[in-house]
Amino acid sequence: MQFHIPYHVYTEKFSKKRLALYHALYDSIVSGVLEAGTRLPSSRELAAMYDVSRGTVSQVYDMLSSEGYITGGVGKGTFVSFQPPKHRTGESPGRSEYLLADWGQRIHELQGWKEEEASNVQSNEKQTINFGAWGSETEFPDKEWHRFLYAESRQLAEGNGLRSRSRISTLGDDGLRESIAQYVRRARGIAVDAQQIAVFNGSMQALALTAQLFINPGERVVVENPGYGGALRAFQALGGICLHAPVDSEGIIPEDWDAKLLFVTPNRQFPTGAVLSLERRHELLAWASRHNALIIEDDYDSEFRHRGKSLEPLKVLDREERVIYVGSFSNTLLSHVRIGYAVLPASLVRLYARAKALFDPHPCNLLEQRALAAWMQSGEYERHLRRMKRVHGKKFKLLREQLDSRLSGLFNWVEGDAGLNLFGWWRGSAEDYVKYRQACLESGICWPETSVQKEDWGSIRYGAYFRFPHLTEEQIIYGVRKMEEIWTSLEGISTS
Amino acid sequence: MQFHIPYHVYTEKFSKKRLALYHALYDSIVSGVLEAGTRLPSSRELAAMYDVSRGTVSQVYDMLSSEGYITGGVGKGTFVSFQPPKHRTGESPGRSEYLLADWGQRIHELQGWKEEEASNVQSNEKQTINFGAWGSETEFPDKEWHRFLYAESRQLAEGNGLRSRSRISTLGDDGLRESIAQYVRRARGIAVDAQQIAVFNGSMQALALTAQLFINPGERVVVENPGYGGALRAFQALGGICLHAPVDSEGIIPEDWDAKLLFVTPNRQFPTGAVLSLERRHELLAWASRHNALIIEDDYDSEFRHRGKSLEPLKVLDREERVIYVGSFSNTLLSHVRIGYAVLPASLVRLYARAKALFDPHPCNLLEQRALAAWMQSGEYERHLRRMKRVHGKKFKLLREQLDSRLSGLFNWVEGDAGLNLFGWWRGSAEDYVKYRQACLESGICWPETSVQKEDWGSIRYGAYFRFPHLTEEQIIYGVRKMEEIWTSLEGISTS
Repeated sequence: MQFHIPYHVYTEKFSKKRLALYHALYDSIVSGVLEAGTRLPSSRELAAMYDVSRGTVSQVYDMLSSEGYITGGVGKGTFVSFQPPKHRTGESPGRSEYLLADWGQRIHELQGWKEEEASNVQSNEKQTINFGAWGSETEFPDKEWHRFLYAESRQLAEGNGLRSRSRISTLGDDGLRESIAQYVRRARGIAVDAQQIAVFNGSMQALALTAQLFINPGERVVVENPGYGGALRAFQALGGICLHAPVDSEGIIPEDWDAKLLFVTPNRQFPTGAVLSLERRHELLAWASRHNALIIEDDYDSEFRHRGKSLEPLKVLDREERVIYVGSFSNTLLSHVRIGYAVLPASLVRLYARAKALFDPHPCNLLEQRALAAWMQSGEYERHLRRMKRVHGKKFKLLREQLDSRLSGLFNWVEGDAGLNLFGWWRGSAEDYVKYRQACLESGICWPETSVQKEDWGSIRYGAYFRFPHLTEEQIIYGVRKMEEIWTSLEGISTS
Repeated sequence: MQFHIPYHVYTEKFSKKRLALYHALYDSIVSGVLEAGTRLPSSRELAAMYDVSRGTVSQVYDMLSSEGYITGGVGKGTFVSFQPPKHRTGESPGRSEYLLADWGQRIHELQGWKEEEASNVQSNEKQTINFGAWGSETEFPDKEWHRFLYAESRQLAEGNGLRSRSRISTLGDDGLRESIAQYVRRARGIAVDAQQIAVFNGSMQALALTAQLFINPGERVVVENPGYGGALRAFQALGGICLHAPVDSEGIIPEDWDAKLLFVTPNRQFPTGAVLSLERRHELLAWASRHNALIIEDDYDSEFRHRGKSLEPLKVLDREERVIYVGSFSNTLLSHVRIGYAVLPASLVRLYARAKALFDPHPCNLLEQRALAAWMQSGEYERHLRRMKRVHGKKFKLLREQLDSRLSGLFNWVEGDAGLNLFGWWRGSAEDYVKYRQACLESGICWPETSVQKEDWGSIRYGAYFRFPHLTEEQIIYGVRKMEEIWTSLEGISTS
């Protein structure tokens, strides 16, 4: 039985074993360390644990029992029967401040954390529509996925787990690395060997490790504005200075930045949805070449192009190994499965393996990695993608129509033909936006937003984006209609 | 169909769409980006993707087909039929050096990485005994574990996953945090609330994030010598200066170090197995108090005490919130499941959540976390532990007897009554050790080792440790006998 009380501390205070044992048990129960209902060891077991006689234990148990702290009987076991008001929570009032390192101090001071991010889910309540929730489980083929999951789970347990099948390394299951390599070659046209694929716990780990490998405090990094907050925080945590590059309908506007790294979402700008023109892609690569800079290309939802054309990823055009291409399965698997990846220059693979090994020497979701690899190899994952594309494409069209016809007075919708969200710039004043958002929130409708300072400084431009894969068509229609209703009910919202 | 060729790059070079399409396909096939066997889109699909006529696609397909690069027929689909010698691996000869940050440069230069660590497994070959392999699957209750895994997997998929059941956060599934809190209260006597439990991807992540939160380059950290290489690397990667504290039969020898952090394994010193005396425990806490220092207490295998007594973890004696207690399930679950945890001071919980969120905003093994929580709540996990304790205790005794009776001439075995390995100091010269290890290796026997410089400098003292949970009793006996045989067959090995 796993059981521990601080008996040895009490033997220092009490010369008699009986008293030491009594007080060790008493204090553990009264402080709540041993909770009500906890089964205590038998007198034989406890005697052996602390090298006391069984008689001593029986005496102590009798004392505690007569005082009402424990109960029990012959053949029934002995249990704690006292419940103190509340656990000690570990706050120690006299404790001096912890001396944080610079990194710790920076993340302590950084703003904009979503502390409860993981609970950002669509509620089951009918009248609540969260356009910011993640996940796309509404049409996920559970049974198919579970078939692969169960098969791989048995494989891992049976063959004594790790001996069998493909080799694994810090950078992921080799079978999955091969499947991803095949996929990015075929679907994105990237010339890559499986050894250049690094599997991460979601794309954020790829960004954070890349930042840590390349950014010293005070060095400059270009980010899109508006852009992805996660990347921004990763650079700021390292003391990097972020240059906020404006974005228009063709994506990020290239400049001759003095910087060491660029984070960019060329294939569908996050969150506006703009597609970076081919000309600008070449400009970014030329910039990187001139400044000996690195580019992180985050291709977070390229799977969902709803119309024909697509442009070459930067990684395809890159002739100097300056691009780290980052992808993710967060939009195509169950949302609790966190698998992302990066396409690395061959000469950096070992360095990334070491960087990851400091945190996760072994893949921490090997089972799901293998299930995904088997699904991809079977060809059924590709069918799943095609089906999701149809399903999402239909909802995309519906949401687009609804927003265009009902809310164009409030937002300028950005044109786009891909992705899992739609973006619009607020047309009115900042004050009106805050008022409108609050009214919607009170009616159970919410969405994620972004804000940029206008050139004339002091004035803020708001943008909102609407994610839909987790919503049914009825929920989409209900949500947008409700937003329209609230608009007409609010007086004085300007429609510039 | 997910498919991409760099068509738009080729339209810049070729004025005719037909030629652009031909060369885009040709180059993709010849470079190996489109592999032999890849199914190409139908002419209708490809025409839609790149806004060309179906006739143009048919012409291009006919050209490539007549040249032997693709094959196909009516109703059969079109496939790539050419296999180039080798993929371009991404090495770009003219590429200048990447400019690493200090952190990146340090891990690039650090020695002692086990690049293939994850493949450190016991081979299926009968004559090969790896005393260093991880895992303890020989007696793992697969079926019981899978019952919980499957049930939780269905829960996650059915209830639209994340809406249902307990809340999750960056620091883990709340149900698991509660189960771990109950466990450490009962089994280790630590007064803790579930909110102070942080679940990590194995204990290494807890060490690495703690190091990063508290250690600046040039700051001093105390580590045990011999000790855990993973912790050493985590501190060195941050530019920390490691003070190597000697260890004797009572564990680390306290001194008045000028340092900010101490990493220690008091409950079973790694790798020697020494148990830190209660007196020294108090000395370490007094030292931390004087220097306003933090202590990481790594309690990596306290579950497996084979005889009675155990001493209070530092965390129990800690009155000033200076101890971060780290534990792991690596020795009690299937070895590919990576779940570790830390008991944090309440005032540091938010900071750790932010630190982890930079890398993994969402738990990356939620399914396994929930399965473990359910297993622990059912009471069956505790039964599994009791059973494993018996199984491992028996093997421990066997290995101890075998080593004592057969190899005491070669090693001084360190006394111990707990854990999953046995440790011995080599009695002879360093040269003899190297010779003996090599001979054993050639006969298929290997073990992990440690080495310390002796005081007189220049002379090295070797130690070896023998892990057993993954081995059968027959393998243990075979391995030690073989080592004895090799000893007697080698001439001139001294037995001081």
